[in-house]
Amino acid sequence: MHEFDLIRQYLQFATVPRQDVMLSIGDDCALLQVPPGQQLAVSMDTLVADRHFISTVDPQSLGHKALAVNLSDLAAMGATPAWVTLSLSLPAANTVWQQWLANFMRGFSTLAHSHHVQLVGGDTTCGPLSMTVQVHGFVAPGQALRRDAAKPGDLIYVSGTLGDAGLALQAQQGQTILSPAEQKRLAQRLDRPLPQVALGQAINHLAHAAIDLSDGLGGDLGHICQASGVGAVIQAAQLPLSALVKQYIQTTADWRLPITAGDDYELAFTVPPDRQAQVQQAAEQVGVPITCIGQITAGHTTQIVLPDGTTQDLQGGYQHF
Amino acid sequence: MHEFDLIRQYLQFATVPRQDVMLSIGDDCALLQVPPGQQLAVSMDTLVADRHFISTVDPQSLGHKALAVNLSDLAAMGATPAWVTLSLSLPAANTVWQQWLANFMRGFSTLAHSHHVQLVGGDTTCGPLSMTVQVHGFVAPGQALRRDAAKPGDLIYVSGTLGDAGLALQAQQGQTILSPAEQKRLAQRLDRPLPQVALGQAINHLAHAAIDLSDGLGGDLGHICQASGVGAVIQAAQLPLSALVKQYIQTTADWRLPITAGDDYELAFTVPPDRQAQVQQAAEQVGVPITCIGQITAGHTTQIVLPDGTTQDLQGGYQHF
Repeated sequence: MHEFDLIRQYLQFATVPRQDVMLSIGDDCALLQVPPGQQLAVSMDTLVADRHFISTVDPQSLGHKALAVNLSDLAAMGATPAWVTLSLSLPAANTVWQQWLANFMRGFSTLAHSHHVQLVGGDTTCGPLSMTVQVHGFVAPGQALRRDAAKPGDLIYVSGTLGDAGLALQAQQGQTILSPAEQKRLAQRLDRPLPQVALGQAINHLAHAAIDLSDGLGGDLGHICQASGVGAVIQAAQLPLSALVKQYIQTTADWRLPITAGDDYELAFTVPPDRQAQVQQAAEQVGVPITCIGQITAGHTTQIVLPDGTTQDLQGGYQHF
Repeated sequence: MHEFDLIRQYLQFATVPRQDVMLSIGDDCALLQVPPGQQLAVSMDTLVADRHFISTVDPQSLGHKALAVNLSDLAAMGATPAWVTLSLSLPAANTVWQQWLANFMRGFSTLAHSHHVQLVGGDTTCGPLSMTVQVHGFVAPGQALRRDAAKPGDLIYVSGTLGDAGLALQAQQGQTILSPAEQKRLAQRLDRPLPQVALGQAINHLAHAAIDLSDGLGGDLGHICQASGVGAVIQAAQLPLSALVKQYIQTTADWRLPITAGDDYELAFTVPPDRQAQVQQAAEQVGVPITCIGQITAGHTTQIVLPDGTTQDLQGGYQHF
């Protein structure tokens, strides 16, 4: 497996060194120094070809996304990213796959650089195309944003806009017609999501609970409600929407896109009402728009109030009639 | 993917809880507390069906081995195991694969229990059968056993006996005839390797460099020599061998088994001569036999002296003529 040895060597130079990495790729283990007084937050995700991505996907975008979805988990905990491990399974180690890997690592490393994250270990094997990424971050004790900490009366916020990745997917699949310029702009939301790391850190001492929106607002907010033993009411009219998604809803009268479509990787979080001004200020300082979309209740249902005044239960998923 | 949700729930109860795990499976991240003054050692390995194991392998043995090979990396650093993450890719979530997973987790969890290791996170996806395991352990600053720390004059030790897993593989492939009782006993060495975790911890303040023997003594010792910029001479007559491997060598006059066969997962380590008594005592206290097999040199070759007095270079791999 001489070619795989070459590939392993290549990975060593993929990210910039950090001072808290005592030993990186090349020994039996990496040796890492967690800062005194900080807890370690870890998350692991696997992406499998033809399940989580099509095997003809642009490898640079895939490299970005494989790391982005993991950094988004750290963002949802309010943690500061530090290290990443990467296990890649490639069908072959020939020049075609070496080129593929070079492009994959370009996307992966660019995002890693921008978050000051070092690749410290992993594995490279021959097998069906897939990758497992584990991220490691720091958070002060008691400041992690857990799913089970929402309280009745908390205001529910989301970052950015919702439904853009879903609309991009529809456009890619030919279900929605967009101009080439619009489609290109929207595709960035689907292919190169930007994890809300700075926002998570900025609000981790203010918010009660948080989650990243990977499966869609309805389902992910349901996870918070279930873990916290609470309910929620959100107002469709308050959902932050891009011009394209607004236009889509006006045309179709279908609200599924911002409620059930996944892959937006924005944050949803709950904040006690007396911290509303503080949390708005914290978000402004990191330059991320946030919007209050509803409130946590003492009930056990997650509901959405549509602009016509009708209410739907989100637990079973929003239905379009 | 309701069935996969069931599988994920099953994993939550797979290992015993530890006090340094603040939050385990079920949130965006696990939250972990590294003890004050300790460094974190991490290692990640992927096993792919029909590449690292045959897909009809006993799942309980595979569960054991998937964790064992990772714990062996911690052992080689002299680290104390603490946490593990596991990403499983299964072809389906039907009852057949649920049963397979139950058996896999039985092997995985039994070994995890015996090392007081908690499963704290991971992923379960639908895809070609494969698994990625990451282990996390602790080691005091400066006490990790690195590959690059061997010094000329160091004595070279190995634990246990060498070549047993290789002989078991030969027997399984029908290349060597053993009695059913012998084959069963030897198969344990191949299918259920016991990582030398206690030994690694016992010698981490005495040894200079260490590695676990996954690829065979010649190659793995070569890694130490290359990283440390040294050479080595080992004596074939001093290699610790089981009765069956001894018998095999007497019959075939072929020394490849203990030198080039992998999968033994014993430790090889180097010790300054003035600590010989201390290291023997430390090994006795954890009940692991260790044997001095040679010495680190100031040269750049890794050589073996055979019982007939001839010398062979190990860098290119031992050749049988």
